[in-house]
Amino acid sequence: MIIEIKEWLAEAAGYIRVSLTNQLTVSQKSGRTDLVTNIDEEIQSFFIKKINQHYPNDRILAEEKGFNTIDSFAGRVWIIDPIDGTMNFVMEQENFCIMIAVYEEGVGQLGFIYDVMKEELYWGGKNYGVFLNERKLPQPKDVTLSEGLIGMNAYMYRKNIYSAGEIGHASMGIRVSGCAGVELIAMLKGNHIGYISNLSPWDYAAGLVLINEFGFKYSNIEGKPLAFDKREYFLAATPAAYTQIQEKFIQ
Amino acid sequence: MIIEIKEWLAEAAGYIRVSLTNQLTVSQKSGRTDLVTNIDEEIQSFFIKKINQHYPNDRILAEEKGFNTIDSFAGRVWIIDPIDGTMNFVMEQENFCIMIAVYEEGVGQLGFIYDVMKEELYWGGKNYGVFLNERKLPQPKDVTLSEGLIGMNAYMYRKNIYSAGEIGHASMGIRVSGCAGVELIAMLKGNHIGYISNLSPWDYAAGLVLINEFGFKYSNIEGKPLAFDKREYFLAATPAAYTQIQEKFIQ
Repeated sequence: MIIEIKEWLAEAAGYIRVSLTNQLTVSQKSGRTDLVTNIDEEIQSFFIKKINQHYPNDRILAEEKGFNTIDSFAGRVWIIDPIDGTMNFVMEQENFCIMIAVYEEGVGQLGFIYDVMKEELYWGGKNYGVFLNERKLPQPKDVTLSEGLIGMNAYMYRKNIYSAGEIGHASMGIRVSGCAGVELIAMLKGNHIGYISNLSPWDYAAGLVLINEFGFKYSNIEGKPLAFDKREYFLAATPAAYTQIQEKFIQ
Repeated sequence: MIIEIKEWLAEAAGYIRVSLTNQLTVSQKSGRTDLVTNIDEEIQSFFIKKINQHYPNDRILAEEKGFNTIDSFAGRVWIIDPIDGTMNFVMEQENFCIMIAVYEEGVGQLGFIYDVMKEELYWGGKNYGVFLNERKLPQPKDVTLSEGLIGMNAYMYRKNIYSAGEIGHASMGIRVSGCAGVELIAMLKGNHIGYISNLSPWDYAAGLVLINEFGFKYSNIEGKPLAFDKREYFLAATPAAYTQIQEKFIQ
């Protein structure tokens, strides 16, 4: 299954890179800064077709229309974000990812985050480790909040939602990339100690499989398990920083 | 002179990339989030030695100790940031730049911004155009504030200094990279429509030569010419966005 998924990702990424030489068709979803393009939809359809062909009994949860709710997490479920960071895709033509997760009975088994323009595939599985392309990544250090950079949702930071502004101020600095995949990759590399944002299941499903392998802690911002059925405030961090954030800023 | 500077940059970048495999010596300057490493100082010394050897009559303004003030901009002046984005250099081992500018009688003649880990050199000169490595870059579009992403200093954004929070809200979104070079590159590529930050001359000297070639507007945030002798609030943007920001948010 891993080899198949990698082949699909390579094919999808090649299509995306070529598509950037053409004009994109961009539409708004919930508002003027919530975009979708024809490519998001085409890539989602591509993966759905592949999964239906090879794993016809599996369920699929995916960002774009028709697949963004699911009735049950029983059995095997694929969670897909065809282009995570669509704003960056449109505006920057970089700093966006394809994300695919495979869950079984609600437990993450495989996760794939592909930074398409850097050609960096971060992937791994439960009790299997985390890899960048073919290289196994080392476990990041358990760094405290005051010693590291933290990825942030800009709006939460500015409005100090759940003390996000103060949490950022207590860190070495915040970074805003506009892409959950890019932020979760920064944690996997040990570059950032955490990430605070407002995310849907397809934004975090693949990343959780990978950060879990490294012992990062994660939950909704109030410390409860992520619901996987709605957008919610999200916190992931090193164990040391997670505990500090919960005890000093949230509770 | 361009060929020489490119050779120096390649040599410096090679040294930096090797140095990242060793332990850095990190010190604080003005506070806990204002860092300098042994590599910043070694790279600055390397450029100063090269300039003194080849251009012994020129003046030098550079970020690290001993060179961060200058008595006059008469004649030819080199303005150097050996590592722009030192925090990223330490924490991320990417998203930092070497920046070199050559000014004559206070007027920018040549600018070089080198993204060391991506091996992308953005360079150009007065009436000469802007290049990425060997490829001439096209003129970015004159995009309005509401149509594009804008780079921001996180603190200004959070505290709404000079309405930075509101300006960000009026755009398509903010990005925070922690590196002036990375932000100015995003403007040169047409990925971002502007940049608001709190910068010293070595943070903007090279970038101004390049964005000036593309007709971007820039000044201190109040619309006055940049002083080149202190840290000040900085605004650069497309002509359309610059005018909107000045008229709607600053004045």
